[in-house]
Amino acid sequence: VVTFKITVAYDGSGFVGWQRQAHGTSIQGLIEDAVGAFAGRAVVVHGAGRTDAGVHALGQVASFTIDRDIDAGTVVRATNARLPDSVRVLDAEPVDPRFHARHSARGKTYAYRILNRRVPDVFQRAYVWHVAAALDADAMASAARPLAGRHDFAAFQASGASTHTTERTVRAISISPPRRTQNGDGSMPVGPFAGLERDVMTIEIAGDGFLRHMVRTIVGSLVEIGSGRREPEWLGRVLASRDRALAGPTAPASGLFLVRVAYDADPLADEC
Amino acid sequence: VVTFKITVAYDGSGFVGWQRQAHGTSIQGLIEDAVGAFAGRAVVVHGAGRTDAGVHALGQVASFTIDRDIDAGTVVRATNARLPDSVRVLDAEPVDPRFHARHSARGKTYAYRILNRRVPDVFQRAYVWHVAAALDADAMASAARPLAGRHDFAAFQASGASTHTTERTVRAISISPPRRTQNGDGSMPVGPFAGLERDVMTIEIAGDGFLRHMVRTIVGSLVEIGSGRREPEWLGRVLASRDRALAGPTAPASGLFLVRVAYDADPLADEC
Repeated sequence: VVTFKITVAYDGSGFVGWQRQAHGTSIQGLIEDAVGAFAGRAVVVHGAGRTDAGVHALGQVASFTIDRDIDAGTVVRATNARLPDSVRVLDAEPVDPRFHARHSARGKTYAYRILNRRVPDVFQRAYVWHVAAALDADAMASAARPLAGRHDFAAFQASGASTHTTERTVRAISISPPRRTQNGDGSMPVGPFAGLERDVMTIEIAGDGFLRHMVRTIVGSLVEIGSGRREPEWLGRVLASRDRALAGPTAPASGLFLVRVAYDADPLADEC
Repeated sequence: VVTFKITVAYDGSGFVGWQRQAHGTSIQGLIEDAVGAFAGRAVVVHGAGRTDAGVHALGQVASFTIDRDIDAGTVVRATNARLPDSVRVLDAEPVDPRFHARHSARGKTYAYRILNRRVPDVFQRAYVWHVAAALDADAMASAARPLAGRHDFAAFQASGASTHTTERTVRAISISPPRRTQNGDGSMPVGPFAGLERDVMTIEIAGDGFLRHMVRTIVGSLVEIGSGRREPEWLGRVLASRDRALAGPTAPASGLFLVRVAYDADPLADEC
């Protein structure tokens, strides 16, 4: 019997989300089928984060236990051989049998990408939120400051969601203004894709855990401020209200990426 | 009566190609329908290059004539309003009525992207050719040298294609080796998409015109050399043979981008 921790990247477009559902294709379902095929029996694969439909992952983590003696390299190859090319296992490692991708997680980091310019980008439409109005990154950064720390984030939770507690700790929130040139030295981008980061604002949020739609509602609220429809001070008042009705709209799933999940042994654990 | 020159970007995935076909959705068909809607009658839109199914464009050029007095900004907005978000008109300008996107073209530049590493990328699968074997960029660059200049490129033409002449001039061919770090100073990439150019080899070819599949067959042949299956000298012999059977395989459409089209008035015309 061996327990494996795997790291998975996926393009969330076209999936119903991480979690297996009655209808539609889920990433969890695809991986369970792939692992089950070489494990020789049905296997439950636990993911660290239940990403919603259309949300992407650069480093989702999942765990499962199988009773066959198989090495990590074979796990990677055998799983990928049965997955569509929109889902890739990047890494696998045998871990302590008490390891559970969700329960053992110490923190997660999400990134949200906003394409901030007049014209949308045909190649990035599934990987950004296109916002045509010019955004004030400084106002957004100043508004975001009160979110850091331990708070009741009920105002940013999906309506109708119910959890044990709505308290969470945001360890860091950073806003990178849109790059108007690709290279730091002001030179022009080279090659057709070298400009992909141009005009993209990235909002990165690390915390011990997140409520359903929490990152997307924070981003939707920050865009209200960045576009001038709200003052920066408004966000702190929304947080204090614990009232979802006062927050901004939920930003689209396409811009959201689960970047990494941190565990105790991980030197990055305190950062996430 | 006004003739317009428009510049168009598109994600070629899922289309039958630029040209209108009996079945399937073409980019030309979409644009003709969009322009026809505000022109008030059916309009023929001529494209500079007939890109194949799955081939992308950063700067395709097309032209059409309408008998309504309408300004360029309105052309851009009215056309985009009727196009799916995988096709965008980037620019429009009124031109001399003798202008024809294909007949007036002086040259074209194509770029081909190869993701050269063991693991594929879930976000780029429709925008690269994934080649797992390590490629020798120096060998490829040395092999490509004899292609520059005016030659009979019959060896690199799609089998069965027939054209008036198979002579073309390649004005420049360059191979950028895969970048193993994102930033020139060796620092690590920042943000989830900052590493998109990492491990990508770009082959750029500029010429006065291209035969069907010519760029993709040149790329497929260069990969034979880069992966060590052929010597660099082999490519010159293939060119001289004018025999398609001797060339390498046709590289997949996904990696190919029509970057720009040059016209007489364009200062870049001599470069393409």
